[in-house]
Amino acid sequence: MVSTVARASEHYHKLRAGYLFPEIARRVAAFQQAHPDAPLIRLGIGDVTLPLVPAVVAALHSASDEMGSTEHFRGYGPERGYDFLLDAIREHDYAARGVTLEREEIFVSDGSKQDSGNIQEIFGVDCRIAVSDPVYPVYVDSNVMAGRTGECDEEGHYAGILYLPATEENGFVPDPPSKVVDLVYLCSPNNPTGSVATREQLTAWVTWARENGAVLVFDAAYDAFIRDADLPRSIYEIEGAKECAVEMRSFSKRAGFTGLRCAYTVIPKALAGTLKSGERTSFNALWERRQATKFNGVPYIVQRAAAAVFSPEGQQQTRAQIDYYMQNARLLHEGLAAAGFRVCGGENAPYVWLRTPRGLSSWETFERFLTDAHVVGTPGSGFGPAGEGYLRLSAFNSHENVTAALERIQKTFTR
Amino acid sequence: MVSTVARASEHYHKLRAGYLFPEIARRVAAFQQAHPDAPLIRLGIGDVTLPLVPAVVAALHSASDEMGSTEHFRGYGPERGYDFLLDAIREHDYAARGVTLEREEIFVSDGSKQDSGNIQEIFGVDCRIAVSDPVYPVYVDSNVMAGRTGECDEEGHYAGILYLPATEENGFVPDPPSKVVDLVYLCSPNNPTGSVATREQLTAWVTWARENGAVLVFDAAYDAFIRDADLPRSIYEIEGAKECAVEMRSFSKRAGFTGLRCAYTVIPKALAGTLKSGERTSFNALWERRQATKFNGVPYIVQRAAAAVFSPEGQQQTRAQIDYYMQNARLLHEGLAAAGFRVCGGENAPYVWLRTPRGLSSWETFERFLTDAHVVGTPGSGFGPAGEGYLRLSAFNSHENVTAALERIQKTFTR
Repeated sequence: MVSTVARASEHYHKLRAGYLFPEIARRVAAFQQAHPDAPLIRLGIGDVTLPLVPAVVAALHSASDEMGSTEHFRGYGPERGYDFLLDAIREHDYAARGVTLEREEIFVSDGSKQDSGNIQEIFGVDCRIAVSDPVYPVYVDSNVMAGRTGECDEEGHYAGILYLPATEENGFVPDPPSKVVDLVYLCSPNNPTGSVATREQLTAWVTWARENGAVLVFDAAYDAFIRDADLPRSIYEIEGAKECAVEMRSFSKRAGFTGLRCAYTVIPKALAGTLKSGERTSFNALWERRQATKFNGVPYIVQRAAAAVFSPEGQQQTRAQIDYYMQNARLLHEGLAAAGFRVCGGENAPYVWLRTPRGLSSWETFERFLTDAHVVGTPGSGFGPAGEGYLRLSAFNSHENVTAALERIQKTFTR
Repeated sequence: MVSTVARASEHYHKLRAGYLFPEIARRVAAFQQAHPDAPLIRLGIGDVTLPLVPAVVAALHSASDEMGSTEHFRGYGPERGYDFLLDAIREHDYAARGVTLEREEIFVSDGSKQDSGNIQEIFGVDCRIAVSDPVYPVYVDSNVMAGRTGECDEEGHYAGILYLPATEENGFVPDPPSKVVDLVYLCSPNNPTGSVATREQLTAWVTWARENGAVLVFDAAYDAFIRDADLPRSIYEIEGAKECAVEMRSFSKRAGFTGLRCAYTVIPKALAGTLKSGERTSFNALWERRQATKFNGVPYIVQRAAAAVFSPEGQQQTRAQIDYYMQNARLLHEGLAAAGFRVCGGENAPYVWLRTPRGLSSWETFERFLTDAHVVGTPGSGFGPAGEGYLRLSAFNSHENVTAALERIQKTFTR
């Protein structure tokens, strides 16, 4: 007998189907069960495949020994992260690019997924949200869960969210909207399209945000994959961005930390919001309160591992991994173009974004790739309505698998 | 020029002052700066002091090596945790006590603070909350931040929350309320009072919850400190609890993981809520969706470390640490009672809850302990209005420090 009648969240029930990646995992598992001998190559979920580099593993061992010693053991750490990691971030990710940050402007966390899902909490329930479309699903889903939207329509648009289509026409980087919004999520290098915003484009966004009182959430989780030295890697390289932008970065892709979990979010002290009373409030202080109440810091050993990424050996070893993945990205881009696909991305990002062939939908193409080529991609429509007609392929795999995947794709789609 | 006018959360601004523990840390730091030579003994924040046990450190080393090898590297893990840890939890924490759980009913996380702060998300915004008073501040604060309360009054009661006073009269375990509520937070062994609910008391709560359609959030973070074999360590030892209760446990105190971060939450599949439409919904499914969207799993190496807690060596080594802390708890309880304090707790919990002397307030007593005895406690009023007139002392320290602290307290408070 189930007698419970406690009130459950109404908002969660507005979410369409499952979160994208578990849904893909379910379909792939079903296919594998039916075809146990099919040699699948996974270019779907953007998960790294190379192991942690030696400098990081050495830091884990050393910090684990500290945790086992009475003298060096560490219990609860500071919620925002240890100074040694904050200082390494300030020096290598910011000062080196001409950006000065205070320790108190950086918050170390266990993932950009968490931070980009939680950041909406410090904004008003009635604030207006804009996202580029397609987009990382967490930005939209976390706002649906928080009650900032209405229902989802047939096409996949939630009422109350402003979608900014990223299309071939705008090079997959939308312009700022003419409508007034409070909060805009931008991701560059972009997941899923692989596009990167130029300095001019980011300058236009910062100018617009400052003129219109909007906050930009700038997700730079893939900045390590930028090859073109002229492209900005931090939004704070743009004048005035500290007054209008939050920035998120992760060790997941730059150093293979998807199974180790470390990221950080920057909220400058100059970033202010308003209350209904008209009073100004500091988003940095609100986020500090949020983290102090609902977070307890990243494991000490993981923070030591993250700091090791900035050591000379760590930098050299992780750069070699990025180079390896970017060779895959180039292979994918060139191989798919040669096979007649319309392709973008893969030049400054680990994702290749390809137009589905012959008028197939995203999920139809996903199924063709799976059943005929035994290659797992990610349907573009899973990232938003404007992703319909696209498929995302990831460069996170071995050269051998990428080459084999390309051969199979070419065979499947060439008569 | 700060031009941003984005709407910030109105709810966060209802929170009183800072989160309790950072506030204590600020006061202690100010005292230390003024008196750099005062030899402080910290019995305030409940942080462990003994290092990780050898079985756990060995597991960290071994798993770190796996993460550095191409063959054994693991990227994103399952959001709910690896099967090896889920199965160890099912076997040791539940089957051993006659409780059968499915893997899909357990969600491994990076902390009970996080889980107890986030659990409210899957409930309706208009659901009615009850807490025992005093209580772990995260239960209340996370509901304030989510907008389920009005303003805080002079005494520290937020409008809209039902407070159930835990007093000397009810042995610090309140009875179920006569009002209808959707969600009740219970903590046993209790933080901060050190009291433990008996089988009869928990049975009354479960019966009440099932009759009234309420969900109990049962926080058992301190279950390892129960010495009395007759006291329940899981709410699922009570018949019918799977239909009305969520349970949280942590490796933080039982195995010294405060700096390593691992916990878990149980949400039985039988636990249902309702939507406004009258439709039933599964809280297990809602939490799964929440975690899939806003969480990315606990580090693989940390899950291996947690599993090692259940190994024969891990069990024996961590039990020895608990015994050590519980000797401190006994020393505190007996020493304070001998010094004339009214004391409870410390028998099946690592906290001692003492009545403030001579009509002093909680913060006044905190300041007396700090300035005269150089001992850091936690003011009871920080845990809620009914905590006024009490101070919490923690058993997490060395025997030497606990003995020294007792001597100083006795000297300070005995004329």
